[in-house]
Amino acid sequence: MSDTPHYGDAFARWRAGAPSWQAYTRHRFVEGLADGSLPHEAFLHYLKQDYVFLIHFSRAWALAVVKADTLGEMTTAAATVNALVNEEMQLHVGICAAAGIDQATLEATAERSENLAYTRYVLEAGYSGDFLDLLAALAPCVFGYGDIGLHTAATRSSDKYTDWIETYAGDDYQGLCVAVGELIDGALLRRLGDGYADLPRFAQLQARFERATALEVGFWDMGLRP
Amino acid sequence: MSDTPHYGDAFARWRAGAPSWQAYTRHRFVEGLADGSLPHEAFLHYLKQDYVFLIHFSRAWALAVVKADTLGEMTTAAATVNALVNEEMQLHVGICAAAGIDQATLEATAERSENLAYTRYVLEAGYSGDFLDLLAALAPCVFGYGDIGLHTAATRSSDKYTDWIETYAGDDYQGLCVAVGELIDGALLRRLGDGYADLPRFAQLQARFERATALEVGFWDMGLRP
Amino acid sequence: MSDTPHYGDAFARWRAGAPSWQAYTRHRFVEGLADGSLPHEAFLHYLKQDYVFLIHFSRAWALAVVKADTLGEMTTAAATVNALVNEEMQLHVGICAAAGIDQATLEATAERSENLAYTRYVLEAGYSGDFLDLLAALAPCVFGYGDIGLHTAATRSSDKYTDWIETYAGDDYQGLCVAVGELIDGALLRRLGDGYADLPRFAQLQARFERATALEVGFWDMGLRP
Amino acid sequence: MSDTPHYGDAFARWRAGAPSWQAYTRHRFVEGLADGSLPHEAFLHYLKQDYVFLIHFSRAWALAVVKADTLGEMTTAAATVNALVNEEMQLHVGICAAAGIDQATLEATAERSENLAYTRYVLEAGYSGDFLDLLAALAPCVFGYGDIGLHTAATRSSDKYTDWIETYAGDDYQGLCVAVGELIDGALLRRLGDGYADLPRFAQLQARFERATALEVGFWDMGLRP
Repeated sequence: MSDTPHYGDAFARWRAGAPSWQAYTRHRFVEGLADGSLPHEAFLHYLKQDYVFLIHFSRAWALAVVKADTLGEMTTAAATVNALVNEEMQLHVGICAAAGIDQATLEATAERSENLAYTRYVLEAGYSGDFLDLLAALAPCVFGYGDIGLHTAATRSSDKYTDWIETYAGDDYQGLCVAVGELIDGALLRRLGDGYADLPRFAQLQARFERATALEVGFWDMGLRP
Repeated sequence: MSDTPHYGDAFARWRAGAPSWQAYTRHRFVEGLADGSLPHEAFLHYLKQDYVFLIHFSRAWALAVVKADTLGEMTTAAATVNALVNEEMQLHVGICAAAGIDQATLEATAERSENLAYTRYVLEAGYSGDFLDLLAALAPCVFGYGDIGLHTAATRSSDKYTDWIETYAGDDYQGLCVAVGELIDGALLRRLGDGYADLPRFAQLQARFERATALEVGFWDMGLRP
Repeated sequence: MSDTPHYGDAFARWRAGAPSWQAYTRHRFVEGLADGSLPHEAFLHYLKQDYVFLIHFSRAWALAVVKADTLGEMTTAAATVNALVNEEMQLHVGICAAAGIDQATLEATAERSENLAYTRYVLEAGYSGDFLDLLAALAPCVFGYGDIGLHTAATRSSDKYTDWIETYAGDDYQGLCVAVGELIDGALLRRLGDGYADLPRFAQLQARFERATALEVGFWDMGLRP
Repeated sequence: MSDTPHYGDAFARWRAGAPSWQAYTRHRFVEGLADGSLPHEAFLHYLKQDYVFLIHFSRAWALAVVKADTLGEMTTAAATVNALVNEEMQLHVGICAAAGIDQATLEATAERSENLAYTRYVLEAGYSGDFLDLLAALAPCVFGYGDIGLHTAATRSSDKYTDWIETYAGDDYQGLCVAVGELIDGALLRRLGDGYADLPRFAQLQARFERATALEVGFWDMGLRP
């Protein structure tokens, strides 16, 4: 069912252990997308901030290519960079253009501190830690949007934000979530063995996942304050 | 005079070009230290957050050791790490102990998002950029506390926060500011030549300095909300 | 003419200032590709080492995505990662398969120390320095193979290594060299202004270029010792 | 006994699993230090290269400060940076001065490729991996010199290199080895739990240890070729 999407074993554990997950994926901003109550101004403000976010998020996925241990890990991470730079960012450019925001305006967006906090946290986790630290910090965004896509598609009562909802509820994005879930589960097994969830290392990764989830809550809060 | 401390050429330029400098160094939190109006609860809350800050700030100075080009740059950065880990952090431990906060409590402090935003910004600037990017992001904290120390020492009307004020107004800390100013000026000359201030690179560093200064404002704001 | 390919202003300067450039691009290994005197065993040995090289070289280009300042820089670097992971590495897999070396053997190749020295030098230059340091260390491989491709195509007297020669002499690879040359020239102008070649920073980049060029010589030397 | 110094559990396992350990710690260069057969010219050449090595090795330990997870890890790593920059490097300056090599000559030493290969491998392991990857790559140098110090002190038949031997056989250096051994054992337990040696992660660290050990063999080989 939509409330518990299946993106692998590590995600199921991390989500269950993240106190902020509900506040993130059922945020007032999210419910406003589903029922159409979100002011259009807030949506456009969010899109502009999210464009800046995606630049740094793409950089973080590129760092995953650098930090991968196997060719398979590298290839999946490189494909994600590509999807972000050449597809998801273009989608934003398109939605924004339709709303009268041109690319120059998008690129000139002043980065809000909630946005900066989140992306620099993820990048620094990646630089200072290893591939697993980076993936744990990247996971809440990837999987949360998958969860939110399914939830808003299942509960929506307005057509106002249908394009956005269908992007994340759609097969392409859901397939990406499954692939990233497999990447993470495989990376954990390859490094920590099949008892990975019992190791102190996993608790550290859990803490990274929760921290990034809490930063997502801050991002939605910021989205409501154009 | 106290309002314009001399910590070198780059600092003078960066400060002049940083719209947030005044908001940072003459913040209500700062004036509250000088006139004693800052609630003690806010001060203790600040000290605990600043302890967490200093851990990451020390890590950032250690990154400067890694990124230095010359032995002289390395040695100055290594001495700063030492001063932070073995002196300034101990000072915090001491002030906190006197206020009834033991080290275990200090270390268990939950990091506020304004704190996280600032330190991760600095570390990521260092990792993604070079030695100059890192120094430009480290500079507002070092020099700002020097400026605030002199300002509060010159204007104080209460003895409540004398220890803190004298730490940053004192010769040791002021000497550190001068040494870091020389480190930065030397690093700029060594890489960019004596026309460095006219290069686009300098404008990028100016932007880093302003961003970190704005994050200092956010840190003081947070300090007022225990 | 083939001996002085045009890949931009910075490359022209770096090549002129690199004492090892001739030893690299006119190495006995290179002349052996052109006249067919290179033993097939040495060629296969080189291909296997180069496969390992390309993995780390792709990681280094992914680091360039992380370290880019503009969207244009990011996009060019991301496209290069893609070309390396999805095309050039596949080419190696293909040539090796035709020579009876399967992918499992390729991936099990024990990395020679000359290979390790070169790739770790490039990656560390990128991590410790900025985007420019990374590009200066990446440049000798990209441009040198372009130069060698044109030189061997113009002088070859044997069909033995035609596939390899045509890969690097071909329009796709030559176009990549031009694009990377533009990336580098643009990155220099954007950071250091149009007098960049007179700055101490440029001499540092020159030293990185020469060091990486010397490591290419070591790589060819190793190629002759299967 | 001198042949199996005790620097902790991880070291005992790593040494036992490193095929190159014997070739490194009982290298002809080492035996030449013990019996005085090492030509003085080779010794001076080694000292100059080792000076360059120590600069990068200090940078790598500074990276360990950045990558540490706990205050205790940070403090030990910071103390090691200090010992390297302010003591061990000064020792080299002193021995070299006594041999007629001034500091300017030392600093102008052209870095040999075996030297570069080793230090860039360690630094890149640290940047791309986490604290454990970095420690596994740093360990062979720290512990190997401890082992070599005890071995040469126990077997020496000449006074020629007594100062060098006593430095590494002495209490200060042996104490450092014990402290670093505790740092590593503690770091493993803290992240991977008490079954750490059975995890795939430990095999990866073993491979890093062996690789760095093999690079030490290359360093001694280079030392014999002034």
